[in-house]
Amino acid sequence: MNSGKSARHEIRIGNWRGPTPSLALGYTQANLVVLPRRYAFDFFLFCQRNPKSCPILDVCENGDYNPILTAPTADIRRDIPKYRIYREGHLEKEVDDILEYWSKDMVSFLLGCSFTFENALLKAGIPVRHIEENKNVPMYITNIECIPAGIFNGPMVVSMRPIPRGLVNKAIEITSKFPKVHGAPIHFSNPEDIGISNINEPDFGDAVTIKTGEVPVFWACGVTPQAAIMRIKPEIVITHAPGHMFITDIKDEELMGI
Amino acid sequence: MNSGKSARHEIRIGNWRGPTPSLALGYTQANLVVLPRRYAFDFFLFCQRNPKSCPILDVCENGDYNPILTAPTADIRRDIPKYRIYREGHLEKEVDDILEYWSKDMVSFLLGCSFTFENALLKAGIPVRHIEENKNVPMYITNIECIPAGIFNGPMVVSMRPIPRGLVNKAIEITSKFPKVHGAPIHFSNPEDIGISNINEPDFGDAVTIKTGEVPVFWACGVTPQAAIMRIKPEIVITHAPGHMFITDIKDEELMGI
Repeated sequence: MNSGKSARHEIRIGNWRGPTPSLALGYTQANLVVLPRRYAFDFFLFCQRNPKSCPILDVCENGDYNPILTAPTADIRRDIPKYRIYREGHLEKEVDDILEYWSKDMVSFLLGCSFTFENALLKAGIPVRHIEENKNVPMYITNIECIPAGIFNGPMVVSMRPIPRGLVNKAIEITSKFPKVHGAPIHFSNPEDIGISNINEPDFGDAVTIKTGEVPVFWACGVTPQAAIMRIKPEIVITHAPGHMFITDIKDEELMGI
Repeated sequence: MNSGKSARHEIRIGNWRGPTPSLALGYTQANLVVLPRRYAFDFFLFCQRNPKSCPILDVCENGDYNPILTAPTADIRRDIPKYRIYREGHLEKEVDDILEYWSKDMVSFLLGCSFTFENALLKAGIPVRHIEENKNVPMYITNIECIPAGIFNGPMVVSMRPIPRGLVNKAIEITSKFPKVHGAPIHFSNPEDIGISNINEPDFGDAVTIKTGEVPVFWACGVTPQAAIMRIKPEIVITHAPGHMFITDIKDEELMGI
């Protein structure tokens, strides 16, 4: 499973149903959002206006399931190990493929995810605490409002990684090179500045240890668009299951600076 | 007329009907495309898939005429000195404002234009021939196909600037810092490589002098999306008139690297 393509093949034939971070290292993984067509323009615009939270990697038009920019041989409907079906804003079930839920009226969006920049941080010797502690990254609802677009609006959700004080600048420098996967942090240090009252009680994911001499650093998070979508309770929304991402043919390095 | 805002004010009250390059120097100018809503998603996607030809600066949703990212106090319908009304793909007329053509069903796109990077080239001591010769930039239809999106497709159109051989690298370096205004060149040297048979007969604009020791350098051009639109002959399309651009509140420097 060295390439994105071979990893997707293993997933498609049912050989892999687990989380994807360990698969096809170096290939960019992406969040999936599938929406009925009538929401697509507004959601596209919401992403364009809020690129740090919603960095668009690829969009499949009406009914198409091949992401022609990032993985033209892939099938969005079968190449992710686990999907979530939401109806009216509520999780209905998790499924292994979405063939029976698919319709020609659906538009699929692939959005950058933080795995890419976490790999870059690790390579540079910067610790990533939730990976060390084998937890989900802690995520928080902030007091920063996204720029609304049509029917979509809501607060920015951020992920937090504690970074040793002397490495914060380096973490900013590295992640700023990857604007397509959330880019530079939106804040560091005092959590209250962005409306987070208790750093030990994340709104999503798990709390992680913040050691003496470490500073909490906050990045815009892909949960932001999902939360904005659920607020309007569409008849159906399909996403990847957390940690079970879409693996593209793009190498992480190719995303630098674009 | 120092700022983008004051230049737009002069235009709105009718004090300026001419070309805009000399106005509000340092403020980013933009191409305008206004389309009926039913074409908007496909056009948005065409731009996202072909960012060098169609760099999106701002999109106003259905019926909105305030570009909230780039000039929130502006009125798209009145703040450009001259507009063009196209019907079924043909120029119908030029007008001073588009109030009577406006409908709530329209979506407006502002796309980056080459004025920004030309200013940066001039500042760096790199000549811009069509400005020296007081001509329109020469533009050519290439053999490079854009990535299609829905109903939109067609070849990339490029603009050409002759650059002294020793300055080509510098011109690439400078323009690559401005991805939102076409970015780095897509080609330099032999025009036939990209399907241009006669450099002295541009498809649009004027031929310019190429001196001994100069290399033709080609950048993706904002005429690309206009040509793709006209091919499908929409019932109505509104654009700026050539050289009569929309002036934003964004400083050229703010576009560096984003």
